[in-house]
Amino acid sequence: MLDNSTMGLLMKSNPVFECYAFYSCILILKMIMMSFLTVLQRFRKKVRFIYIFISPEDTAISKGGGEVKYDDPDIERVRRAHLNDLENIPIFLITGLLLVASNPPEMIANNLFRIYTFVRIMHTIAYAVFILPQPTRAIFFIAGVVINIIMIIYVILSMHNF
Amino acid sequence: MLDNSTMGLLMKSNPVFECYAFYSCILILKMIMMSFLTVLQRFRKKVRFIYIFISPEDTAISKGGGEVKYDDPDIERVRRAHLNDLENIPIFLITGLLLVASNPPEMIANNLFRIYTFVRIMHTIAYAVFILPQPTRAIFFIAGVVINIIMIIYVILSMHNF
Amino acid sequence: MLDNSTMGLLMKSNPVFECYAFYSCILILKMIMMSFLTVLQRFRKKVRFIYIFISPEDTAISKGGGEVKYDDPDIERVRRAHLNDLENIPIFLITGLLLVASNPPEMIANNLFRIYTFVRIMHTIAYAVFILPQPTRAIFFIAGVVINIIMIIYVILSMHNF
Repeated sequence: MLDNSTMGLLMKSNPVFECYAFYSCILILKMIMMSFLTVLQRFRKKVRFIYIFISPEDTAISKGGGEVKYDDPDIERVRRAHLNDLENIPIFLITGLLLVASNPPEMIANNLFRIYTFVRIMHTIAYAVFILPQPTRAIFFIAGVVINIIMIIYVILSMHNF
Repeated sequence: MLDNSTMGLLMKSNPVFECYAFYSCILILKMIMMSFLTVLQRFRKKVRFIYIFISPEDTAISKGGGEVKYDDPDIERVRRAHLNDLENIPIFLITGLLLVASNPPEMIANNLFRIYTFVRIMHTIAYAVFILPQPTRAIFFIAGVVINIIMIIYVILSMHNF
Repeated sequence: MLDNSTMGLLMKSNPVFECYAFYSCILILKMIMMSFLTVLQRFRKKVRFIYIFISPEDTAISKGGGEVKYDDPDIERVRRAHLNDLENIPIFLITGLLLVASNPPEMIANNLFRIYTFVRIMHTIAYAVFILPQPTRAIFFIAGVVINIIMIIYVILSMHNF
């Protein structure tokens, strides 16, 4: 913890902010990759001699034709994993920023950022890459939620004006 | 308003930031609860002797079996309420941070945070808990959007370099 | 770039922050408009003598009746454009904030914010307003992703504690 509670903490000179910024970037890169994983799944379906697109105009991309479908199980699986990211990661990123501004113990905060990043990457792998049997995915999901709630409680207890 | 426009405002010593951080945490907790409300609805369906899951591997959780469905009205209702949160709350959280950095009048900013939190909680209750007749839900939705737009206009008018 | 790397950068006196805040507001306004574009599409369908709503209780709004559907192509198109925004813009807003805190060259950062805002507005127009032929939409989408990745790389390279 830095000494002066009235100085800014959202800056590079604060090691907790640096750690937060680094893992935020990793998580955001992971989310960006989900879009491309979806596209990859759409094109992999070519082996079955048919492309599957989300909008009618997209079929123009493939000269061999293609169709618009919303029920392919492999594509929908990646999209559900992506939606789960959308439901969890952006709010974690805000919580993390508030935690940094709450001047938490450096080691605890940094490890929360590291563990959260790990469990969300594992969640995606269990959901959309190797499809591990349950409750693997559920455990990673809940671990992420618990970390987020711990951070929220720390921030709430730090604030005195509301 | 603090005197010095060049000092940092995103810190605990700024009461507007404290108020923003507190209500952000409440809104994020509310969003996290939506995930569990969905799961709760999935398991409540047990009384009809069948579990409803989102992925095939999830059926292993219940020994009594279960099926994968995407059209159960009660589950889809909670998911729509969650999606509406995703469309509104993360952008509000960013807008709120920018508003704090714009050095707004303390009482106005704090009350905007409080009212927004109230209307979003009421929106969820009207949408997914008690299912109140329209236009109840529409009024809460629009109230939230209006508050967000007011904050955006304040921030835009505060900025001089773009 | 400002001289002192230990001073706060997330404040109005930093022109990069002002530019970031301004374009963040434009992007958030654009996202808010997507909700109303969806509602507009729902009511435009009146010319076919039928309203299309998302929840059963919403049919009470129109005295002339209405039905609940999830497969109208024009409405679903706007919703897909909105979902694409949700998948991209909130994480860009966090990345942008981290970039500002990384003290980037002012001209480069400001132009990244401007170009990103432009391509995302064009993406929405190509997807949901004029429905331009592919690969128009794909190009705007990828341009946005590339800018986001450039910013992430700059932030990661700026951080030394993780």
